[in-house]
Amino acid sequence: MKLDLVFKALADPTRREILRLLNSGEMTAGQLADRFDISAPSMSHHFNVLKQADLISARRDGQLIYYSLNTTVFQDILTRMFSLLEPGAEAEERRGR
Amino acid sequence: MKLDLVFKALADPTRREILRLLNSGEMTAGQLADRFDISAPSMSHHFNVLKQADLISARRDGQLIYYSLNTTVFQDILTRMFSLLEPGAEAEERRGR
Repeated sequence: MKLDLVFKALADPTRREILRLLNSGEMTAGQLADRFDISAPSMSHHFNVLKQADLISARRDGQLIYYSLNTTVFQDILTRMFSLLEPGAEAEERRGR
Repeated sequence: MKLDLVFKALADPTRREILRLLNSGEMTAGQLADRFDISAPSMSHHFNVLKQADLISARRDGQLIYYSLNTTVFQDILTRMFSLLEPGAEAEERRGR
Protein backbone atom coordinates (compact mmCIF):
# COMPACT_ATOMS: atom_id res chain seq x y z
CA MET A 1 0.00 0.00 0.00
CA LYS A 2 1.30 3.41 -0.97
CA LEU A 3 0.31 6.24 1.36
CA ASP A 4 0.75 8.77 -1.45
CA LEU A 5 -1.92 7.07 -3.54
CA VAL A 6 -4.23 6.72 -0.54
CA PHE A 7 -4.07 10.41 0.37
CA LYS A 8 -4.44 11.49 -3.26
CA ALA A 9 -7.53 9.29 -3.48
CA LEU A 10 -8.97 10.87 -0.33
CA ALA A 11 -8.33 14.43 -1.58
CA ASP A 12 -11.65 14.57 -3.41
CA PRO A 13 -15.17 14.93 -1.95
CA THR A 14 -16.78 12.63 -4.54
CA ARG A 15 -14.36 9.83 -3.71
CA ARG A 16 -14.91 10.32 0.03
CA GLU A 17 -18.68 10.11 -0.62
CA ILE A 18 -18.20 6.87 -2.60
CA LEU A 19 -16.30 5.38 0.34
CA ARG A 20 -19.06 6.32 2.75
CA LEU A 21 -21.76 4.88 0.48
CA LEU A 22 -19.81 1.61 0.25
CA ASN A 23 -19.55 1.52 4.03
CA SER A 24 -23.17 0.29 4.03
CA GLY A 25 -22.28 -2.63 1.75
CA GLU A 26 -21.23 -3.35 -1.82
CA MET A 27 -22.90 -1.52 -4.70
CA THR A 28 -22.77 -1.80 -8.47
CA ALA A 29 -21.01 0.85 -10.55
CA GLY A 30 -24.44 1.87 -11.86
CA GLN A 31 -25.98 2.21 -8.39
CA LEU A 32 -23.08 4.39 -7.32
CA ALA A 33 -23.22 6.50 -10.49
CA ASP A 34 -26.94 7.16 -9.84
CA ARG A 35 -25.99 8.95 -6.61
CA PHE A 36 -23.86 11.56 -8.39
CA ASP A 37 -24.45 14.11 -11.13
CA ILE A 38 -21.17 13.12 -12.76
CA SER A 39 -20.40 11.72 -16.22
CA ALA A 40 -19.71 7.98 -16.60
CA PRO A 41 -16.06 8.52 -17.63
CA SER A 42 -15.49 10.71 -14.57
CA MET A 43 -17.09 8.10 -12.30
CA SER A 44 -14.83 5.45 -13.86
CA HIS A 45 -11.85 7.65 -13.13
CA HIS A 46 -12.87 8.00 -9.47
CA PHE A 47 -13.36 4.21 -9.18
CA ASN A 48 -9.92 3.62 -10.68
CA VAL A 49 -8.20 6.07 -8.32
CA LEU A 50 -9.85 4.37 -5.33
CA LYS A 51 -8.90 0.91 -6.66
CA GLN A 52 -5.27 1.95 -7.24
CA ALA A 53 -5.15 3.15 -3.64
CA ASP A 54 -6.58 -0.24 -2.61
CA LEU A 55 -9.43 1.52 -0.81
CA ILE A 56 -12.08 -0.41 -2.78
CA SER A 57 -12.26 -3.74 -4.57
CA ALA A 58 -14.18 -4.64 -7.72
CA ARG A 59 -15.78 -7.94 -8.70
CA ARG A 60 -17.56 -8.65 -11.94
CA ASP A 61 -20.83 -10.62 -12.08
CA GLY A 62 -21.97 -10.90 -15.70
CA GLN A 63 -22.31 -7.36 -16.97
CA LEU A 64 -22.33 -5.82 -13.51
CA ILE A 65 -19.30 -4.55 -11.59
CA TYR A 66 -19.68 -4.60 -7.81
CA TYR A 67 -17.54 -2.34 -5.66
CA SER A 68 -16.86 -2.89 -1.98
CA LEU A 69 -14.92 -1.03 0.68
CA ASN A 70 -11.58 -2.47 1.84
CA THR A 71 -12.36 -1.75 5.47
CA THR A 72 -9.13 -3.21 6.84
CA VAL A 73 -7.05 -1.04 4.50
CA PHE A 74 -8.92 2.05 5.63
CA GLN A 75 -8.37 1.17 9.28
CA ASP A 76 -4.69 0.52 8.57
CA ILE A 77 -4.37 4.02 7.10
CA LEU A 78 -5.86 5.57 10.22
CA THR A 79 -3.43 3.61 12.37
CA ARG A 80 -0.55 4.80 10.20
CA MET A 81 -1.75 8.39 10.37
CA PHE A 82 -1.67 8.15 14.17
CA SER A 83 1.81 6.65 14.02
CA LEU A 84 2.90 9.48 11.70
CA LEU A 85 3.26 11.51 14.86
CA GLU A 86 5.28 8.93 16.74
CA PRO A 87 9.04 8.35 16.55
CA GLY A 88 10.10 5.58 14.21
CA ALA A 89 7.06 5.74 11.97
CA GLU A 90 9.01 6.82 8.91
CA ALA A 91 11.32 3.84 9.24
CA GLU A 92 8.28 1.56 9.13
CA GLU A 93 6.97 3.40 6.12
CA ARG A 94 10.31 3.04 4.33
CA ARG A 95 10.22 -0.70 4.93
CA GLY A 96 6.94 -0.63 2.99
CA ARG A 97 4.87 -1.83 5.92
CA MET B 1 -10.31 23.62 7.06
CA LYS B 2 -10.57 21.99 3.68
CA LEU B 3 -10.13 18.23 3.69
CA ASP B 4 -9.04 18.29 0.04
CA LEU B 5 -6.05 20.49 0.90
CA VAL B 6 -5.18 18.39 3.95
CA PHE B 7 -5.11 15.13 2.03
CA LYS B 8 -3.18 16.67 -0.87
CA ALA B 9 -0.64 17.93 1.67
CA LEU B 10 -0.33 14.46 3.20
CA ALA B 11 0.15 12.78 -0.20
CA ASP B 12 3.90 13.37 -0.17
CA PRO B 13 6.57 11.58 1.91
CA THR B 14 8.68 14.74 2.41
CA ARG B 15 5.72 16.62 3.86
CA ARG B 16 4.84 13.70 6.14
CA GLU B 17 8.47 13.67 7.32
CA ILE B 18 8.30 17.43 8.03
CA LEU B 19 5.19 16.88 10.15
CA ARG B 20 6.89 14.16 12.15
CA LEU B 21 10.00 16.28 12.71
CA LEU B 22 7.82 19.14 13.97
CA ASN B 23 6.07 16.74 16.34
CA SER B 24 9.16 17.08 18.58
CA GLY B 25 8.80 20.86 18.72
CA GLU B 26 9.12 23.92 16.51
CA MET B 27 12.04 24.20 14.10
CA THR B 28 13.36 26.93 11.83
CA ALA B 29 13.01 26.65 8.05
CA GLY B 30 16.79 26.21 7.88
CA GLN B 31 16.87 23.42 10.48
CA LEU B 32 14.18 21.58 8.58
CA ALA B 33 15.89 22.12 5.21
CA ASP B 34 19.11 20.61 6.65
CA ARG B 35 17.25 17.33 7.15
CA PHE B 36 16.44 16.95 3.45
CA ASP B 37 18.46 16.79 0.25
CA ILE B 38 15.98 19.11 -1.42
CA SER B 39 16.40 22.56 -3.00
CA ALA B 40 15.34 25.65 -1.05
CA PRO B 41 12.52 26.52 -3.49
CA SER B 42 11.16 22.97 -3.22
CA MET B 43 11.28 23.12 0.59
CA SER B 44 9.43 26.46 0.47
CA HIS B 45 6.80 24.85 -1.70
CA HIS B 46 6.34 22.01 0.81
CA PHE B 47 6.06 24.50 3.70
CA ASN B 48 3.44 26.48 1.79
CA VAL B 49 1.36 23.40 0.98
CA LEU B 50 1.40 22.42 4.68
CA LYS B 51 0.51 25.96 5.74
CA GLN B 52 -2.37 26.17 3.26
CA ALA B 53 -3.71 22.91 4.71
CA ASP B 54 -3.37 24.50 8.17
CA LEU B 55 -1.21 21.55 9.28
CA ILE B 56 1.66 23.85 10.34
CA SER B 57 2.01 27.46 11.48
CA ALA B 58 4.84 29.89 10.81
CA ARG B 59 6.14 32.70 13.00
CA ARG B 60 8.93 35.08 12.11
CA ASP B 61 11.63 36.10 14.59
CA GLY B 62 14.04 38.49 12.92
CA GLN B 63 15.40 36.70 9.89
CA LEU B 64 14.29 33.28 11.09
CA ILE B 65 11.02 31.57 10.29
CA TYR B 66 9.89 29.04 12.90
CA TYR B 67 7.45 26.32 11.94
CA SER B 68 5.30 24.38 14.38
CA LEU B 69 2.79 21.55 14.07
CA ASN B 70 -0.91 22.37 14.45
CA THR B 71 -1.55 19.33 16.60
CA THR B 72 -5.23 20.01 17.17
CA VAL B 73 -5.86 20.31 13.41
CA PHE B 74 -4.12 17.00 12.82
CA GLN B 75 -6.20 15.31 15.52
CA ASP B 76 -9.35 16.85 14.05
CA ILE B 77 -8.51 15.32 10.67
CA LEU B 78 -8.14 11.88 12.22
CA THR B 79 -11.51 12.27 13.92
CA ARG B 80 -13.06 13.30 10.62
CA MET B 81 -11.49 10.36 8.82
CA PHE B 82 -13.08 8.05 11.36
CA SER B 83 -16.41 9.80 10.89
CA LEU B 84 -16.03 9.42 7.11
CA LEU B 85 -17.29 5.91 7.63
CA GLU B 86 -20.27 6.90 9.74
CA PRO B 87 -23.70 8.00 8.52
CA GLY B 88 -24.19 11.76 8.39
CA ALA B 89 -20.54 12.65 8.08
CA GLU B 90 -20.89 14.16 4.60
CA ALA B 91 -23.62 16.49 5.81
CA GLU B 92 -21.24 17.77 8.48
CA GLU B 93 -18.53 18.21 5.87
CA ARG B 94 -20.88 20.17 3.59
CA ARG B 95 -21.67 22.49 6.46
CA GLY B 96 -17.95 23.20 6.53
CA ARG B 97 -17.49 21.82 10.01
